[in-house]
Amino acid sequence: MGRRAVVVSVGEELLDGRIVDTNAPWAARELLQLGYRVVAMHTVGDGRGELELLLRGLSGEVDLVVSTGGLGPTADDRTREEGAALLGAGLQEVPDAMAPLAASWARHHDQPPPEFFLAQARVPVGSQPLENPAGTAWGFALRTGGLLWLALPGPPGECAATWVEGGGRALAAAEVGDGAGIALAVLHTCGLPESRIEALVRDRMEQTGAVRLGITARPEGVSLSVLATPDGETSAGARLQSELDVLCERLGEWCWGRDTQTLAEVVLCALRERGQTLAVAESCTGGLLGGELTEVAGSSEVFLGGWVTYTDASKVRDLGVPEPLLAAHGAVSREVARAMAEGARARAGADWAVAVTGIAGPDGGSAEKPVGTVCFGWASPQGSGAVLRRQFARAGRASVRRQSVRDALDLLRRALAALPPLPDADRGA
Amino acid sequence: MGRRAVVVSVGEELLDGRIVDTNAPWAARELLQLGYRVVAMHTVGDGRGELELLLRGLSGEVDLVVSTGGLGPTADDRTREEGAALLGAGLQEVPDAMAPLAASWARHHDQPPPEFFLAQARVPVGSQPLENPAGTAWGFALRTGGLLWLALPGPPGECAATWVEGGGRALAAAEVGDGAGIALAVLHTCGLPESRIEALVRDRMEQTGAVRLGITARPEGVSLSVLATPDGETSAGARLQSELDVLCERLGEWCWGRDTQTLAEVVLCALRERGQTLAVAESCTGGLLGGELTEVAGSSEVFLGGWVTYTDASKVRDLGVPEPLLAAHGAVSREVARAMAEGARARAGADWAVAVTGIAGPDGGSAEKPVGTVCFGWASPQGSGAVLRRQFARAGRASVRRQSVRDALDLLRRALAALPPLPDADRGA
Repeated sequence: MGRRAVVVSVGEELLDGRIVDTNAPWAARELLQLGYRVVAMHTVGDGRGELELLLRGLSGEVDLVVSTGGLGPTADDRTREEGAALLGAGLQEVPDAMAPLAASWARHHDQPPPEFFLAQARVPVGSQPLENPAGTAWGFALRTGGLLWLALPGPPGECAATWVEGGGRALAAAEVGDGAGIALAVLHTCGLPESRIEALVRDRMEQTGAVRLGITARPEGVSLSVLATPDGETSAGARLQSELDVLCERLGEWCWGRDTQTLAEVVLCALRERGQTLAVAESCTGGLLGGELTEVAGSSEVFLGGWVTYTDASKVRDLGVPEPLLAAHGAVSREVARAMAEGARARAGADWAVAVTGIAGPDGGSAEKPVGTVCFGWASPQGSGAVLRRQFARAGRASVRRQSVRDALDLLRRALAALPPLPDADRGA
Repeated sequence: MGRRAVVVSVGEELLDGRIVDTNAPWAARELLQLGYRVVAMHTVGDGRGELELLLRGLSGEVDLVVSTGGLGPTADDRTREEGAALLGAGLQEVPDAMAPLAASWARHHDQPPPEFFLAQARVPVGSQPLENPAGTAWGFALRTGGLLWLALPGPPGECAATWVEGGGRALAAAEVGDGAGIALAVLHTCGLPESRIEALVRDRMEQTGAVRLGITARPEGVSLSVLATPDGETSAGARLQSELDVLCERLGEWCWGRDTQTLAEVVLCALRERGQTLAVAESCTGGLLGGELTEVAGSSEVFLGGWVTYTDASKVRDLGVPEPLLAAHGAVSREVARAMAEGARARAGADWAVAVTGIAGPDGGSAEKPVGTVCFGWASPQGSGAVLRRQFARAGRASVRRQSVRDALDLLRRALAALPPLPDADRGA
């Protein structure tokens, strides 16, 4: 993989941890698609000379630097001064930029615009201005050593607009020859721990050359990213596809989707194709399962609604769970989970229903049913059933709940694909 | 401010832009509170020698490095090898760690655990192991040159547990002398846009010296961070408190909490103090409001449950909303929101209920009721009512839903504090 890039984020608010940096991962994805490999990301503050020093160090090491931030109107916005210092030059006005900037000031103020505000229309002498169609601060592009530096504004909308419409992306793309592009895909799995997924694809991870794999484990599931570069006569896209063919066969029933797909989308799509509907009944997830399903635009075609039955009384009253069943098995039991699903399906008049009842913690556990014990029930035109899982509980309440939402959706996915239901499982401690 | 720290995030999935790094800002906030100044953040990949080279460069430059990631069981997790290389040493087993690790493997596998999995219980010779109570991978602490390096696991829950319970924070704190500390607080507001909050505290933001303020706007609300350093004889804590006194008075009814508090916690706490209970009825938020409330441990004392009535039929059947009301005003109306709240309160037998019905988009909007139109109803022992808001819709469906959860909770907060309900509002475009 040829071209090397570095992403730099500028701002004390990042170093204080006040804001989470979403520009850097966005820039990384953009650069990957153009054929750059991002070898590092750096976050620096507003100190005089800091950015200049970093850029001097990167010159000769990498081909491209994309920076975000430090172009605003306040005293601690120093990116343009750092660029001028790097070139040993001063600042110059962007032709025709001052008048609109002054007009923008005049809309909110009676006084004429101050110097610091007008600085937003200046760029280092010797650099190329990059227009910011979503804001007032201009970006710039400059070359130093063998390196091209694209300086973009920090607010995410302005950053993206300056990149796409302001010409940053075109400059970065022009550095890369045809066919140097990278193709990227992410495969999502559910049902196996990271170590078992890795065992399925270990030899593919160890290959060197045109394809690189990475595994990421999150409460939502384990995902596998695949990055392909051109391989002799084979394009990156073709190389990616042949790797995906191998991987999908290896991952089999555990793989439920790719890239930006969510498990909720996959489930809703399968139901929509059959013209069937869904209802949910939730206890320990408290509404998160319904929330996840309705995050999908258009979910109302399939999803009829749900019950958050957080008390025993509401399980009886709203879902018709028999009181003797609750008394005999407790609210967290396969029996009650199944009855909740059957009740939700019948009362909503839905084709399918899924139910979750469990102990999310930190309190409420017992020796027999420790924190992390969660039961899932389902009901469908084909019948009903339930499973019990002991979730990995040490990561806390929020994690148990997220794992449970994922497992409820995966239970539906498997049932809709006529895959056998997963057996009871213990992921505990 | 004396001690200098650097935060390092490790992982190709960060350099690919596959995940957003929330560990680095979290670590920065933790370090600030201990009295460190974070001078830079770096993200590096899994290449052999990369991390070692970075650490060598930082040795002599900064006092502390906190790294996250690269400690898992897969081949691309190299942090412990990099630590060993830095010390010119090998790896050693953490005493007593192997048996639980092998037991954890045995729950999912029939074969004995492979080498790469057991690597999680090894640390560089000469380092101090840091226990990870939330996962299987141990962290470690080592010294090189004048620098202390704390290596924490990447999954956020495990990272925090290793820092707090595993001893990382105690080691970092022990490096800092008394009185060097920084005091940090974040005040949370709801109900006013960023520019109005800024206008309330502008003079406080412009002060220089021992106190520094920052404003951050997110869909959850606008928050104000306050960072205080010692000021002559006054400790950082005392300086912080006197600034907070001023700010809380300025922010008045708009300020609902501080630091890690959530709006759901504040509402549940107010209800618990009164011995009262709550139910919810949700349409466009699809369960997210119940999900947010039940994220709070112990919420079952107060929260009885909820209904996700995603169809008109379910609003009638489950909440008793009169069909003529739906026909006359539509599902997204103050009238229906109020009827939903009244129905939820009566059927759950709760003291309070809140209801949300709106158009989250991207489809379903009209000229009269554009995307972003959301109605909130409430019912309490004192009566019932409803408001309409036009949320900021350009940020998309997920943002409209998050704004709506926040507004529903804030409506409850204000009612419980006997503050006047906010009037209908238009935040649109």
